[in-house]
Amino acid sequence: MAHLLSTSCSIKLSSSHRPQSQPFRQCPTKCLTFFTLGASKYPFKRFVLQGRTQQANCVVRAAVAPISQETPTQSSSGPQQNSSEPFKPKRVMVIGGDGYCGWATALHLSNKGYEVAIVDNLIRRHFDLQLGLDSLTPIASIHNRLRCWQSVTGKTIELYIGDICDFEFLSETFKSFEPDAVVHFGEQRSAPYSMIDRNRAVFTQHNNVIGTLNVLFAIKEFRDQCHLVKLGTMGEYGTPNIDIEEGYITITHNGRTDTLPFPKQASSFYHLSKVHDSNNIAFTCKAWGIRATDLNQGVVYGVRTDETEMHEELCNRLDYDAVFGTALNRFCVQAAVGHPLTVYGKGGQTRGYLDIRDTVQCVELAIANPAQPGEFRVFNQFTEQFSVNELASLVTKAGEKLGLDVKTISVPNPRVEAEEHYYNAKHTKLIELGLRPHLLSDSLLDSLLNFSIKFKDRVDTKQIMPSVSWKNIGVKPKTLSA
Amino acid sequence: MAHLLSTSCSIKLSSSHRPQSQPFRQCPTKCLTFFTLGASKYPFKRFVLQGRTQQANCVVRAAVAPISQETPTQSSSGPQQNSSEPFKPKRVMVIGGDGYCGWATALHLSNKGYEVAIVDNLIRRHFDLQLGLDSLTPIASIHNRLRCWQSVTGKTIELYIGDICDFEFLSETFKSFEPDAVVHFGEQRSAPYSMIDRNRAVFTQHNNVIGTLNVLFAIKEFRDQCHLVKLGTMGEYGTPNIDIEEGYITITHNGRTDTLPFPKQASSFYHLSKVHDSNNIAFTCKAWGIRATDLNQGVVYGVRTDETEMHEELCNRLDYDAVFGTALNRFCVQAAVGHPLTVYGKGGQTRGYLDIRDTVQCVELAIANPAQPGEFRVFNQFTEQFSVNELASLVTKAGEKLGLDVKTISVPNPRVEAEEHYYNAKHTKLIELGLRPHLLSDSLLDSLLNFSIKFKDRVDTKQIMPSVSWKNIGVKPKTLSA
Repeated sequence: MAHLLSTSCSIKLSSSHRPQSQPFRQCPTKCLTFFTLGASKYPFKRFVLQGRTQQANCVVRAAVAPISQETPTQSSSGPQQNSSEPFKPKRVMVIGGDGYCGWATALHLSNKGYEVAIVDNLIRRHFDLQLGLDSLTPIASIHNRLRCWQSVTGKTIELYIGDICDFEFLSETFKSFEPDAVVHFGEQRSAPYSMIDRNRAVFTQHNNVIGTLNVLFAIKEFRDQCHLVKLGTMGEYGTPNIDIEEGYITITHNGRTDTLPFPKQASSFYHLSKVHDSNNIAFTCKAWGIRATDLNQGVVYGVRTDETEMHEELCNRLDYDAVFGTALNRFCVQAAVGHPLTVYGKGGQTRGYLDIRDTVQCVELAIANPAQPGEFRVFNQFTEQFSVNELASLVTKAGEKLGLDVKTISVPNPRVEAEEHYYNAKHTKLIELGLRPHLLSDSLLDSLLNFSIKFKDRVDTKQIMPSVSWKNIGVKPKTLSA
Repeated sequence: MAHLLSTSCSIKLSSSHRPQSQPFRQCPTKCLTFFTLGASKYPFKRFVLQGRTQQANCVVRAAVAPISQETPTQSSSGPQQNSSEPFKPKRVMVIGGDGYCGWATALHLSNKGYEVAIVDNLIRRHFDLQLGLDSLTPIASIHNRLRCWQSVTGKTIELYIGDICDFEFLSETFKSFEPDAVVHFGEQRSAPYSMIDRNRAVFTQHNNVIGTLNVLFAIKEFRDQCHLVKLGTMGEYGTPNIDIEEGYITITHNGRTDTLPFPKQASSFYHLSKVHDSNNIAFTCKAWGIRATDLNQGVVYGVRTDETEMHEELCNRLDYDAVFGTALNRFCVQAAVGHPLTVYGKGGQTRGYLDIRDTVQCVELAIANPAQPGEFRVFNQFTEQFSVNELASLVTKAGEKLGLDVKTISVPNPRVEAEEHYYNAKHTKLIELGLRPHLLSDSLLDSLLNFSIKFKDRVDTKQIMPSVSWKNIGVKPKTLSA
């Protein structure tokens, strides 16, 4: 499946497109610019592609652009830096930069002065097409998003469209962009998606594990000082009956002591793929001296960040369906359309949560304070713990304030997981680096609910109830809607 | 790579071929019988293919054979068994049954009265072709091996040639053979092989992880009571500074206690693939009720088992090269040809070891005492611990008794590993099930050395020194000998 999507193209948008004041769905500039890098041996340092619409046609021009002209205040660093100076990353590659967290992160880093490139095969949008799903919010094409960003801020984000499972493509992106840091969101990130059928389970593990292996090899080969910031998940730990530490635990056993990787108990093929990645990355840090940070992220909620607020064409996606929607976001949309909140099983499932504004802040902190060569650093990236029942209760109260009649139903749990359990996970390392959390507040819930109400006509209520069962996954491909 | 080898064929050998008294290399019966199952929807329950040589031509006939005629004393069991009765496995599928451990195991189980099928894509032989390697011992084709086994013992081992990464092929083998237990040796099992280049690293993880996922799905779909006996490795644990338990460790932390998976610290892409498998299997035991035993095997030495001794055409492979050879086997061959024993680094690397006669015994014990539904059971499968220096010393003494002048050299360690470390791994569970170890003795070393001397003219001394470096692995495919 991955290889079907490995068509490679590198695009840098520098058109004079202005953000549209009318809804972007009517935006007249809809130029899809593709330029295949694979066939060339990148005779140019970097491509500048200019697109403008001539009726139905799209004109694309390629031109050589000296680096100094493109990035007047910054130049390539990384391996060229003096090793006695602290490593100061400037150029950040965001893999999966068209997704929910990736898009917000790419804009945030660009806004903070980093030179940013997005690498994405756009498969997240393809999943929606295949499963008949859609974001609550209308989202512009990645091409129009980036044009809009440039028009609004004057900042350019480079775009490389292709599949990181295709190593030749990935090599070209590394050689062309020369990243100092790679933020890796480029994975199939839904547990239910990975449990639809055998094909999706295998796809998820192949895509995530091989993609990450390729990133590690690309760093080793082309940018050995590049810092890998990998998005992991708190779900890797499962729900042990002891406190969850950040990546490692010191164990005294039979009179001897060692600090070892915290035991993992993942509970979907997706979560397992992240465990595999963590183990692979840890090995390469030790064997090759890779510098890596594993951000074990909790459940993300919210949709707005400072940057996506700048223009409606920059709006982020918001998933409310049972495959890609995360708990709090789903509940807010359910409340908005008058659907009972769907609590799976007893609702005692407790997890770490964070606002998407903290996701982008955490990634920035990790990049600005890179791991040392050979260091495999693990941060637990969340700000508060809630049970599902607690979230339902908070949404119910917030909804009532807005005049919504919010009900809750318990639905049979499609997952295999403990529904009542101990949960206490440490999350101090990012705070120590300077994270200032946006804790879940009434105002945030009001905002999310109002946002959901604004777009409630776009909701397909058939996508709300869970349709994927951990126990009933089969070997026959599911070809209809999930 | 895996998919290039997914040609499927199911073969059952029942020719009247007699074992050869002359060296089997001159054996006139060299009939390669291929029958593609993929194109048919298995209209017959099971195939019997009969092969005989007519000059250079090979005649293959297929015929329907009623099960009762084929297996007069046993019938299919598994899901059909009364659930109140203890689960008694009779039909065992050995995936990777043409390899070093797999071949010895398949014969042993057949000899013990189990109905055995071998599933293998023969890629281990292909690796030798690609890398210019060969077994110290001449080995017959799998087809001739099985004919010989039938001639010698009257027992039939079914053969399915194909790739378990091809789920359609694997499905057919499950539906045709209906295993009660699956012994899974079907993985790329060399750490150095996985560290040759990026292609081999990716192949190893893809092949091992996806193949095992497919086996899990096949069990769930077609034989839900089938017991998975998976070969893991002691290398999954690494070398922690605490005692290594069998799969799990009870941790008390901040006043709370839980029993959790023992932390893993694998140190090659191969070893990591086994960790990934362990995590995937553990999840499916919990989510689907799979019954599984993970045999974390130590380093295997020796070549002879009771069954391979019955005829020279049944002889097992013995690898002495730096890619596939295991420590003690390599040292014996080095001593036989007068090559200094190659100790990597300081030689303090300590691991668990076992005789191949104990490998087959352990697998039999695991099968005869199956895990419970939903249980993920881990046994550490080795009998003694040695450091590399201790092994070198033992081989030196044994060689001197045979008049060999044995020297040892320290070569730069091609691996990234601790060369002096604490190591104490538990291995009591298989003993409790009845394992009677063959401990490393002078007589075994004599035998192995004499065996090596017998075949020393087949040794290619260019294959002895390590050529694969953990640190220097690159992205360009290595196309010459490893």
